[in-house]
Amino acid sequence: MAHEQHAELIKALHDCAAACNHCFDACLQEEDVKMMVGCIRLDRECADICSYLEHAITRNSPFVSELAAVCAAICEACGTECQKHDHDHCQKCAEACFKCAEACRSVA
Amino acid sequence: MAHEQHAELIKALHDCAAACNHCFDACLQEEDVKMMVGCIRLDRECADICSYLEHAITRNSPFVSELAAVCAAICEACGTECQKHDHDHCQKCAEACFKCAEACRSVA
Amino acid sequence: MAHEQHAELIKALHDCAAACNHCFDACLQEEDVKMMVGCIRLDRECADICSYLEHAITRNSPFVSELAAVCAAICEACGTECQKHDHDHCQKCAEACFKCAEACRSVA
Amino acid sequence: MAHEQHAELIKALHDCAAACNHCFDACLQEEDVKMMVGCIRLDRECADICSYLEHAITRNSPFVSELAAVCAAICEACGTECQKHDHDHCQKCAEACFKCAEACRSVA
Repeated sequence: MAHEQHAELIKALHDCAAACNHCFDACLQEEDVKMMVGCIRLDRECADICSYLEHAITRNSPFVSELAAVCAAICEACGTECQKHDHDHCQKCAEACFKCAEACRSVA
Repeated sequence: MAHEQHAELIKALHDCAAACNHCFDACLQEEDVKMMVGCIRLDRECADICSYLEHAITRNSPFVSELAAVCAAICEACGTECQKHDHDHCQKCAEACFKCAEACRSVA
Repeated sequence: MAHEQHAELIKALHDCAAACNHCFDACLQEEDVKMMVGCIRLDRECADICSYLEHAITRNSPFVSELAAVCAAICEACGTECQKHDHDHCQKCAEACFKCAEACRSVA
Repeated sequence: MAHEQHAELIKALHDCAAACNHCFDACLQEEDVKMMVGCIRLDRECADICSYLEHAITRNSPFVSELAAVCAAICEACGTECQKHDHDHCQKCAEACFKCAEACRSVA
């Protein structure tokens, strides 16, 4: 089963989507929102593609590896932006993004 | 945090989306596909809304309870269809759907 | 065919999703982002549900009216927030949201 | 504006998503469903990615070209499957898929 074979990737995608969505929400509540606009934009991109790919894996999509390559690039970009910021939600998000990027590359 | 408060619902949504997507894939591979068309259609509906709602919760959407009410109705319909079929993937899917419907109703 | 019967609603959803996504993007580029956080959050909510519902209609989902009721509420909330701001993208977004809310209510 | 610059691609994506979703629905209602399982599966894949990319363009995503490359591949695969079947919905779907694949390649 696709979703058993890819259990680790599914977990990484799930955690990354949740971390990005939480970071999106928390960034919008920060005092200095102006500084977080790159984060807000990339959090949405990254949460959306991780959720999409997780969904695609569980339905046994024939395009998992192509989607994983794009997802890795988006996770990498989001992690790179998030790690610039000291907020706890940004640091946790960056960590989840880099872990997910690596998991994606392993199937891309 | 929204996603800590709703940890149980998130798990139910995640499991239900995966079970529905797996059932969708498995139904398409059944010998007697004709009998599974209701299942195939509802599996897609249910996987999509569960994934959507999970995503909405983690981004702290202000519309979680409205979406959960719709999601409960869709899970209920999908579970009712799936439980008619003896296939293991259908029975497991029905179980995940009913559990998720209940979790959705608790926040709707 | 579902998508012929609902041609007007599909157009309203399509226009609203595009207006909300454009407003999301434009709000993130505004000098005073702080003032736009409500807009940014609701733009994402509204674009996502409009896109979801449009997609659901074209696949002949059995849950169009339930989804349309939720969509109408989200469009209404987004339009109400957007119309408070003078930016051209906010005013256009509010107009698209109210029009879409009305189209949704007609099938809800 | 992203969505003005990409007006033609947005139209192709919109038409392709609608054609694939309609074909998905119609295939599930065909007498000989067994023969349509490849179509049903790819229709869902293709409708989902087209809808995703359309949405990504209108929010000015920085990843439009990477996503368009994957979308082109999925449209191509779906069109190739659909054109094997004589049903009107399959032929129309194939046409929309190939047109969309070409539009995607122009920005990939």
